[in-house]
Amino acid sequence: MNGQRSGKQPSADAPLGVFDSGLGGLTVVHALRDHCPNEDIIYLGDNARVPYGTRSPDTVIRYALTCAHELADRGVKALVVACNTVSSVALDELRAQLDLPITGVIVPGARAAVDASGGHRIGVLGTVGTITSGAYTRAVASLSGRAEVIGQAAPLLVALAEEGWMSGEVPELVVKRYLDPFFGPEDVPGMPRRADVGCVVLGCTHFPLFRELIVHQMRELGGRGIPVVDSAIQTALDVRAFLHDSGLGNSQATSGTLQLLVTDMPASFEEVAGRFLGAALGRVEQVDLGKPTAG
Amino acid sequence: MNGQRSGKQPSADAPLGVFDSGLGGLTVVHALRDHCPNEDIIYLGDNARVPYGTRSPDTVIRYALTCAHELADRGVKALVVACNTVSSVALDELRAQLDLPITGVIVPGARAAVDASGGHRIGVLGTVGTITSGAYTRAVASLSGRAEVIGQAAPLLVALAEEGWMSGEVPELVVKRYLDPFFGPEDVPGMPRRADVGCVVLGCTHFPLFRELIVHQMRELGGRGIPVVDSAIQTALDVRAFLHDSGLGNSQATSGTLQLLVTDMPASFEEVAGRFLGAALGRVEQVDLGKPTAG
Repeated sequence: MNGQRSGKQPSADAPLGVFDSGLGGLTVVHALRDHCPNEDIIYLGDNARVPYGTRSPDTVIRYALTCAHELADRGVKALVVACNTVSSVALDELRAQLDLPITGVIVPGARAAVDASGGHRIGVLGTVGTITSGAYTRAVASLSGRAEVIGQAAPLLVALAEEGWMSGEVPELVVKRYLDPFFGPEDVPGMPRRADVGCVVLGCTHFPLFRELIVHQMRELGGRGIPVVDSAIQTALDVRAFLHDSGLGNSQATSGTLQLLVTDMPASFEEVAGRFLGAALGRVEQVDLGKPTAG
Repeated sequence: MNGQRSGKQPSADAPLGVFDSGLGGLTVVHALRDHCPNEDIIYLGDNARVPYGTRSPDTVIRYALTCAHELADRGVKALVVACNTVSSVALDELRAQLDLPITGVIVPGARAAVDASGGHRIGVLGTVGTITSGAYTRAVASLSGRAEVIGQAAPLLVALAEEGWMSGEVPELVVKRYLDPFFGPEDVPGMPRRADVGCVVLGCTHFPLFRELIVHQMRELGGRGIPVVDSAIQTALDVRAFLHDSGLGNSQATSGTLQLLVTDMPASFEEVAGRFLGAALGRVEQVDLGKPTAG
């Protein structure tokens, strides 16, 4: 987390701001509530413009700035970018324009992957935007001189998650096709193939919904279990360490509150968000990001 | 087409304005160039906010208004809404706010479907927004007291078209699943099922890319061919008739020009747009719809 700020010191009582293009980032909120239970959280899902992962870096930066400004205007003490695509292409611009500590999910995810890979290559499933940016390759290189990354864009998994098709023949075939580049050729027909990766990173906040299917298909294809890494938990641990080190942790005795904001369809967001959050939600409020911003 | 306008008469020399959430509407441009070859066309694809089909009616209306105002500001003589979702939920608001003749694709598609259905029910594949709106049901009811509509939302076909997976096992399974409600129960295992529809409407401009697959799967499931209707041609014929009747047809001796505008990624739009247009494109220009509008 980028904790060196020039301006005023934020208050420890202020909430954390978390945003994503839609509801995937709630997996990060879930982990934050486990590991930073006293923190109040404001979550913003920009579902009127979801998905970000197929858009150009310029457009993603423009959209991310409106989300970040909305949360800054609501007085958050730090920003957690719970979206791999935004974390891949927009962190520098967000840090340049906002006087707040900001963390993404790529560096925490890369750190967990380097630990899990046992010195082997790291397979990353992500959106087109995340994979094209090379952000995981850069993050892994900065943490370990040795580890190599094999990136695979998996855009249909986002569509399948939103359609609610998380099991059955179609997601199985789609997952299998996306995992294929992580394995060597089929030397003996019908026999397991050599895995070219030591772990697989779920490099999009939607993908934990396919975690079991991915674990299963990696075993089917390679004949043995391979670790599957989700950056949400590592991100929450990084945020906890930052809050502790900076003296910004909330010391209230009660559990933190959760406020949910979306840019479209609060009712349908409420309906599916529990799946990502692993818990019941409060009321979801709709906000308009259409107004012009400083960005 | 709603041709009764209160304001100034537009010029016959002006271009037609056509818009869609992305590149699907180019199938309508294709048909317009076949049937109205003298017309200049400005096409706008709002691919920075694609897809519209999963968003709320309010958000679709808001986005459609920015597209329509952009084209109106460029001096078009009429608007063709080449998007089923926008045509389903936003035509009234567009007509209220813009002093231009406006046509959508639903009524032309419904007319072609009533003609093709032979008095049987009409199956419609569309986005969630189009199917939920009931727009085809209303349009069919207004044309024929008898025809009934069976609507099936098919959002994954949009994602598959954008991923370029138009053939193979995954799109076959997805198409089959979406066509299932158009057939009666499997009375004899392995034998064709009774079709409950007399035709199927491709109620989303992305779906003509799956036309052959849908034709094939309808035959596989039902044991006989069933007409598959694409509203693009009927829309172009309606526009031609309107231009003739209103005296707004362009009388230039040469073929009309085509100007392409997008809100994101002009290069990648150029790359795939030929598939929809069935011809080579000119240069694609990027425009910004972020500025506030009268809407």
